[in-house]
Amino acid sequence: MIDTDKRHMAHALVLGKRGLGQTWPNPSVGCVIVKDGRIVGRGRTALGGRPHSEVVALAQAGEAARGATAYVTLEPCSHTGKTPPCAQALIDAGVARVVAAISDSDPRVSGQGFDMLRDAGIEVTTNVLAEEAYYDNAGFFLKVEHGRPWVTLKLASSFDGRIATASGESRWITGPEARRVVHAERARHDAVMVGAGTARADDPDLTVRGMGEVPQPVRIVVSRLIDIPLMSRLAGTARDVPVWICHGPDAAREICEAWEGLGARLIRCDLNGRQIDPRSLLQELGEIGLTRVFCEGGGALAASLLGADLVDELLCFNAGIAIGAEGQPNIGALGLGRLAEAPRFHLRDVRQVGDDILHRWTRN
Amino acid sequence: MIDTDKRHMAHALVLGKRGLGQTWPNPSVGCVIVKDGRIVGRGRTALGGRPHSEVVALAQAGEAARGATAYVTLEPCSHTGKTPPCAQALIDAGVARVVAAISDSDPRVSGQGFDMLRDAGIEVTTNVLAEEAYYDNAGFFLKVEHGRPWVTLKLASSFDGRIATASGESRWITGPEARRVVHAERARHDAVMVGAGTARADDPDLTVRGMGEVPQPVRIVVSRLIDIPLMSRLAGTARDVPVWICHGPDAAREICEAWEGLGARLIRCDLNGRQIDPRSLLQELGEIGLTRVFCEGGGALAASLLGADLVDELLCFNAGIAIGAEGQPNIGALGLGRLAEAPRFHLRDVRQVGDDILHRWTRN
Repeated sequence: MIDTDKRHMAHALVLGKRGLGQTWPNPSVGCVIVKDGRIVGRGRTALGGRPHSEVVALAQAGEAARGATAYVTLEPCSHTGKTPPCAQALIDAGVARVVAAISDSDPRVSGQGFDMLRDAGIEVTTNVLAEEAYYDNAGFFLKVEHGRPWVTLKLASSFDGRIATASGESRWITGPEARRVVHAERARHDAVMVGAGTARADDPDLTVRGMGEVPQPVRIVVSRLIDIPLMSRLAGTARDVPVWICHGPDAAREICEAWEGLGARLIRCDLNGRQIDPRSLLQELGEIGLTRVFCEGGGALAASLLGADLVDELLCFNAGIAIGAEGQPNIGALGLGRLAEAPRFHLRDVRQVGDDILHRWTRN
Repeated sequence: MIDTDKRHMAHALVLGKRGLGQTWPNPSVGCVIVKDGRIVGRGRTALGGRPHSEVVALAQAGEAARGATAYVTLEPCSHTGKTPPCAQALIDAGVARVVAAISDSDPRVSGQGFDMLRDAGIEVTTNVLAEEAYYDNAGFFLKVEHGRPWVTLKLASSFDGRIATASGESRWITGPEARRVVHAERARHDAVMVGAGTARADDPDLTVRGMGEVPQPVRIVVSRLIDIPLMSRLAGTARDVPVWICHGPDAAREICEAWEGLGARLIRCDLNGRQIDPRSLLQELGEIGLTRVFCEGGGALAASLLGADLVDELLCFNAGIAIGAEGQPNIGALGLGRLAEAPRFHLRDVRQVGDDILHRWTRN
């Protein structure tokens, strides 16, 4: 029985993962409805967060939901927001049992969804593959509990940790297979974020390419004084795919207006010394609703986030190439006094990707 | 039949690998003698290079060698040096067939060992698991063909490629499992080599520890002016485990004599500008007979070797820690003009080691 529960929950988790990057400000939840050992309904949170996975799966199951077991990767919601609560939908459909991976830390839901179900005579099992479910939606929980999104920091460098030569040449250090992984990761995040230096040096698109028809993440540039060319690709495409400019309080008004005129969204952040305060930056993004941000550098923004202990996951690529100490570092100055103060991460995965290596670390 | 040959050759290769680091100036060869499907003799090149593997294996096989097949990872020698040629020993023992992985590029042997065997009516098969055999003894071939040893460069750093904080704190970035791999690698090389900066900063032993009773590799410090404390651990133990000091022509005579007095061997190298010329350094070491050198940094020596295209293999460890751009780089300045000039390596292996990752690259 337990193995059956795990198997169906693993299936629901796969469905939920497919929606990562597409459901903000909501979590991406997966749901599988099983009747007499047969899957009669499957669903995941739809684009933009609605409808919820349970509603999608119940619609597919129809009458077959009666007496069935619903596997859902997060506690069904109990509050009436823009849609009626999913717990009620499960009750109305006549589901006999609900298996949930984890409870929702949203104070409007936490435990109350389970209570509603139990009060209606539905058997409730929780804590099935909880760790994986928590990891998948850690960005949503961070936003609810700490007001900020999950931050994945990408570092693509030579094996000596350089992202460009002294003269700024950086295309290409890693190979096409690594770049494909980067595009897949962009698609799994709500937004892609870079510093102004990277925006100037690379004139990047920051779009997801080569992945078929997928929703594009928001593109964010962090630049205190908005020191980004108005002739850049980002500026030219801001009406097609959202561009958000996170700037300091001292950015010139005419530059702000020029970017707004191009279709960009301007987000004013506090300073910490001469830099944009990374805490303020992420609070602003969390307030708008972002749950997962993919930061692609450069070294100064990476150091700013790492130094404030705001990096949740590292996605490191190394190519088999040496650039040397004059090259540009993947992480800027951190100002560490002692080695014991260095930010530490825990290895999740390491493998070969094309001619490069990929290693993924999460905060300790 | 072919699979049987490969299986026995793989066995011989394992025997040969065990001797790496212990047989210089000779290669480390493995030999297995098989009679009627039974292994009747096994051998590998002995400590210091003699006796050769065939002699060891034949002695073990005794009369059973008659009519047997000998698997040997390198062409049996044909010249009379300090010992009679192994090809003759195989003939005298009445071996019916010899299977060799590769031919010997030593001009005194190349092909002549096989000729001797064939002239005596022995069936000879070559080119069995040749790639692996060539890789294992690549240091020996480099010495024979180019007069220099194989160089493995170890880089143990944070994921941003730093080997120490700005203040020089470096113990410990990687964990005990990674350090254990380093000790095993030291044992597989003829010598361990560091620059003077590392010798001063870390006061290292550079010995193999925790590996049981194993022969110790030579310990080499590269320092133009021999800028290493006479009160260091290396100085204090030079009579127990060899210490070689590779210095420039302008090193002070009294310092040379002081080190000689401590038991160190002084090796004079040419300069290239203000630095010891890495080509001269390796030629000197090759002339003495070294076939495999394990360089453990620091960044300046690593850059010197990489810049001269003298690094054959990279052994990279990364810990899940960020040190930042003020930290000391694992590779010093390379003076690259363009990215296309950067030294490139090919991935051989990547895996987790304790809490760290290990990636091994060989020259392209």
